[in-house]
Amino acid sequence: MLKYSVFLGNVGSCYDRYCPEYSKPFSLKELFTRATSIEKLDAVDLVTDWEMMSKKSEIKQLLKETGLKVGSLAVDTFANPLYKKGSLSSTDKEVRDRAIEDSKAVIDFASEIGCSIVTLWPGQDGYDYIFAADYIKERQLFADGVEELCKYNPDITITLEYKIKEPRTHSYISTVGATLLMIEKIDLPNLGIALDYGHAALGYETPAEAVAMCKMYGDRLKHIHINDNYRLWDDDMIVGSVHTLEYLEFFYWLKRTGYNGYLVIDQFPYREDGRDAVSESAEWLDALQKVADRIDEEELKSVLAKRDGVASSKYMRKLLFGD
Amino acid sequence: MLKYSVFLGNVGSCYDRYCPEYSKPFSLKELFTRATSIEKLDAVDLVTDWEMMSKKSEIKQLLKETGLKVGSLAVDTFANPLYKKGSLSSTDKEVRDRAIEDSKAVIDFASEIGCSIVTLWPGQDGYDYIFAADYIKERQLFADGVEELCKYNPDITITLEYKIKEPRTHSYISTVGATLLMIEKIDLPNLGIALDYGHAALGYETPAEAVAMCKMYGDRLKHIHINDNYRLWDDDMIVGSVHTLEYLEFFYWLKRTGYNGYLVIDQFPYREDGRDAVSESAEWLDALQKVADRIDEEELKSVLAKRDGVASSKYMRKLLFGD
Amino acid sequence: MLKYSVFLGNVGSCYDRYCPEYSKPFSLKELFTRATSIEKLDAVDLVTDWEMMSKKSEIKQLLKETGLKVGSLAVDTFANPLYKKGSLSSTDKEVRDRAIEDSKAVIDFASEIGCSIVTLWPGQDGYDYIFAADYIKERQLFADGVEELCKYNPDITITLEYKIKEPRTHSYISTVGATLLMIEKIDLPNLGIALDYGHAALGYETPAEAVAMCKMYGDRLKHIHINDNYRLWDDDMIVGSVHTLEYLEFFYWLKRTGYNGYLVIDQFPYREDGRDAVSESAEWLDALQKVADRIDEEELKSVLAKRDGVASSKYMRKLLFGD
Amino acid sequence: MLKYSVFLGNVGSCYDRYCPEYSKPFSLKELFTRATSIEKLDAVDLVTDWEMMSKKSEIKQLLKETGLKVGSLAVDTFANPLYKKGSLSSTDKEVRDRAIEDSKAVIDFASEIGCSIVTLWPGQDGYDYIFAADYIKERQLFADGVEELCKYNPDITITLEYKIKEPRTHSYISTVGATLLMIEKIDLPNLGIALDYGHAALGYETPAEAVAMCKMYGDRLKHIHINDNYRLWDDDMIVGSVHTLEYLEFFYWLKRTGYNGYLVIDQFPYREDGRDAVSESAEWLDALQKVADRIDEEELKSVLAKRDGVASSKYMRKLLFGD
Repeated sequence: MLKYSVFLGNVGSCYDRYCPEYSKPFSLKELFTRATSIEKLDAVDLVTDWEMMSKKSEIKQLLKETGLKVGSLAVDTFANPLYKKGSLSSTDKEVRDRAIEDSKAVIDFASEIGCSIVTLWPGQDGYDYIFAADYIKERQLFADGVEELCKYNPDITITLEYKIKEPRTHSYISTVGATLLMIEKIDLPNLGIALDYGHAALGYETPAEAVAMCKMYGDRLKHIHINDNYRLWDDDMIVGSVHTLEYLEFFYWLKRTGYNGYLVIDQFPYREDGRDAVSESAEWLDALQKVADRIDEEELKSVLAKRDGVASSKYMRKLLFGD
Repeated sequence: MLKYSVFLGNVGSCYDRYCPEYSKPFSLKELFTRATSIEKLDAVDLVTDWEMMSKKSEIKQLLKETGLKVGSLAVDTFANPLYKKGSLSSTDKEVRDRAIEDSKAVIDFASEIGCSIVTLWPGQDGYDYIFAADYIKERQLFADGVEELCKYNPDITITLEYKIKEPRTHSYISTVGATLLMIEKIDLPNLGIALDYGHAALGYETPAEAVAMCKMYGDRLKHIHINDNYRLWDDDMIVGSVHTLEYLEFFYWLKRTGYNGYLVIDQFPYREDGRDAVSESAEWLDALQKVADRIDEEELKSVLAKRDGVASSKYMRKLLFGD
Repeated sequence: MLKYSVFLGNVGSCYDRYCPEYSKPFSLKELFTRATSIEKLDAVDLVTDWEMMSKKSEIKQLLKETGLKVGSLAVDTFANPLYKKGSLSSTDKEVRDRAIEDSKAVIDFASEIGCSIVTLWPGQDGYDYIFAADYIKERQLFADGVEELCKYNPDITITLEYKIKEPRTHSYISTVGATLLMIEKIDLPNLGIALDYGHAALGYETPAEAVAMCKMYGDRLKHIHINDNYRLWDDDMIVGSVHTLEYLEFFYWLKRTGYNGYLVIDQFPYREDGRDAVSESAEWLDALQKVADRIDEEELKSVLAKRDGVASSKYMRKLLFGD
Repeated sequence: MLKYSVFLGNVGSCYDRYCPEYSKPFSLKELFTRATSIEKLDAVDLVTDWEMMSKKSEIKQLLKETGLKVGSLAVDTFANPLYKKGSLSSTDKEVRDRAIEDSKAVIDFASEIGCSIVTLWPGQDGYDYIFAADYIKERQLFADGVEELCKYNPDITITLEYKIKEPRTHSYISTVGATLLMIEKIDLPNLGIALDYGHAALGYETPAEAVAMCKMYGDRLKHIHINDNYRLWDDDMIVGSVHTLEYLEFFYWLKRTGYNGYLVIDQFPYREDGRDAVSESAEWLDALQKVADRIDEEELKSVLAKRDGVASSKYMRKLLFGD
């Protein structure tokens, strides 16, 4: 079974565009304590802004104390208002340079704490309005930035996390296809995808097919974020709380394609206790992986070979409920 | 457990806007034979056009021979091109009169064969373009027609099947709220809703909540169509082949609100064998109802009282996988 | 032409679930100054929380100084975390009582400043998860609360603002149909709808049809919020920046049904200057209303009578570009 | 201004999954006559099945008589039930071979009549159910087939038409990114994209950005289908009947990237007269292109450089309504 990490902030509190504070915030130490209290977690992922980087020694100490590993560091190019009109794709050279600088600092920090993955989720790199962007120029600037970061430290894998929209109404790093295409053109070995299950679902992708495509086009799946939603928005809910069967197919393809990284729980528990919501996701992940592990490769291949909805349905029913 | 019916044509073949014939068609007799071969079915529902009404005696004979009951008769106001711009809402009096006439003929037929429900699915009553309809006038014409049909034979329940779109880009009988509102204003006891599970999901309704609303506003739920989809289109797939948990909540609310009509399987198995796809849906319905039947009313009420996503998630996990 | 108001905060800055502050915040006085600088505005609408109510005298003074009227007061039952699991629908009596109390305070304030409309946007009244709510009970509690507020001061019109989702994944006051149904049952003259154009579009409603339905079922349209979006999310963009033709139909139906309230600009200019974005919306409203005013009632009625997409298209083309 | 073609069948009648015949069908000769009666058309595009190929001489004669050119030939791999589970991606070698054979016959026919583009719209190549397809294998089979067809006749450009879904619930050739990626890997000069405007909109793409991406990644835009929809389904409506501004941006990017092929009208006028609906689309195309032609390259570039929604909005307002 795959191991679990969590975005550290997930065990804390969150806000949205209406309510600035659904619950009281937690200190870094409290967040670590809360994460550690969830036995099924092996690691944490950290959104790394300058405030966090200023606490390097505290973080190292907390990691040591809790025994938690670091799944990945995500560069903060989305919460910092400096990047509100784009980070690596910004047409403002000063802003772009700062995005490079921030990212390199995070790469260095990753290197320092023995974390091999740095994630870029370019949430602000996109556009909102019609006639508001030079699509070619900005996409190229973004790709150039990514290339520079990959070359900066070949030992760190840069993973791009795609999402079709939000916070911009349209993102550049939007779908699995568009992202793999950019990776294909940059063509560096330490560049891959951080697949967010909910983002795939939001973009009307079948998450399992996205996994397959990552394998097919260069074996680029390097990191996974996991949560659930109603498909029309990135609701970031508890894993398994809406869908069931698609997770089973997803875990099957992860195994088949040899993915052995983390499943990083990544949700927004606005009204729930963050720690409990993460713990609950870990329980679902266990339950769903256990069912997926019952899949017999040969039997499934014979089902897939039939190309028949009834056969697939029967198979899923058996998988879920037994004969 | 609730009993199952099927739209007779579902065990046959179907077409879409690109392919006029995915498989060879079946005769009426063959369709009955195929339906009868599915043991879990108690009844059939019939889309009733003039061709079918011309075969009344054959149908009666086939019903007698097969022992199948009739769940409901659905008036054909959607396949007949006469109604392509609306049936009961048509601004063309001649067309509207024909729709009334057709519907009364179906009501008479229902009466004759001992079926107590006639369904109106006004798929063509709506509009496609902006600036293309007088919304007030056409909605009122539709309501007037429904009232006339209800009064025509008070022993037959008229059920309105809502759907937010397709075949029109916008339907008048669109959502559970709009439909209950029209029913509320007409205010006749033999008027209710035929809730299509997939239509509810397509309209971003929670099917269980739609059931609750029907109860709350006049106890109007009289018939149910069931299938599955990916929420963004009325894919009319095998029940349970995409979603799991929402069905459990749906069956719980059906029981809680005292629904005791049929679950009518209603799907479009373009590429599958129709009979097998229906049989498969019946198997899922058994399996899902069995799980829903494990729900302990008191325990669930205490969960609902918590108003907490983690509690709900835990409960669903336990329901599906046991402790 | 209809007059314009704006939610005061719109001329300021905003945040989302990722970025807590896209731009620096403005003081109340600054917001009023900025609003006043937009000549096309006649009024402001105020989201009224306790902080704002503590500044009653300052607000009165600012209104006097600027000459701005107040379009409506919106009770804050969405930004206050106390209501995170519901306000009037809360199953926690203490919370519900507080929601009633807050609303009555806002009604009193409205009365005091000569504003006749109080808006309830019950954004937190709904649910996120499956098996997480007792739909009948909570909907009834909400309706009871609304009834109590209507009776509290018959001179103030209470308007319900519906929205299918967000911040909850599912709202109780969801669609025009469901809202009119609740209003129909409560059946009080000072209860109506605050129609948010973007919310209608998000729920796959045709905004013009929503206007027509409000007219048809009790003449319930009492207030309008306006903005634009890409239909799949409440993007709250500048009016007219995405769609064109549907606004024309919307303004036509407003005129036809005799709406004479405000058009309240309601947007989230995350990355734009708030004042300029509001000013820009006012310019679009002028331009679009001007085109809509060219509509000849008789000519349009003859187009609608045709029930023909080509005729509608021709008409729209002529309307937009002339012959 | 770009020239217009039309899918020949568009001037005729159509059906959907409910109604097998909305209007009476037309003969090939009648369709040509109807197309010719629309002065703004320069060409027709033909869906080429075996029935049509059996009428080669009649078609050649009709082309000669009417003076219409042929925009492209589209291989019928979607209406023929043989391909209901896939054409070039079929795991059934016999079916795949037939798809190759059919496509080559269409390529030969194209060559014979002096048409340089053959379009593949692989509508049936995809899947409907979870656990129903071996994504890697089938995608590879499809790519291999495309490669074989490109090599068959280097003088004919093969264009892939992507669409995220329908008739399958999920298509392999789904988004602009995924399609360009496949093209990038096959890497042949006579392979490109047939961009359907409505398909792009359905997949939450900005059509103008899709044009830009085609330019950026190998200058692959070779053909365009055009129509309009409400973004949530491929409604195939009259061009310009729903949206306005996005077309302007689309035409701008077509000019900027040097596209000089046809705009092929491609719609489903279920309830309208097909000929009139096409004629109406041509009128809109004229009107919209005329507005787009007013764009001053330098002025727009300075707007795009601002990266500001207010500036974009102002620009669009000016473009549409003048100062």
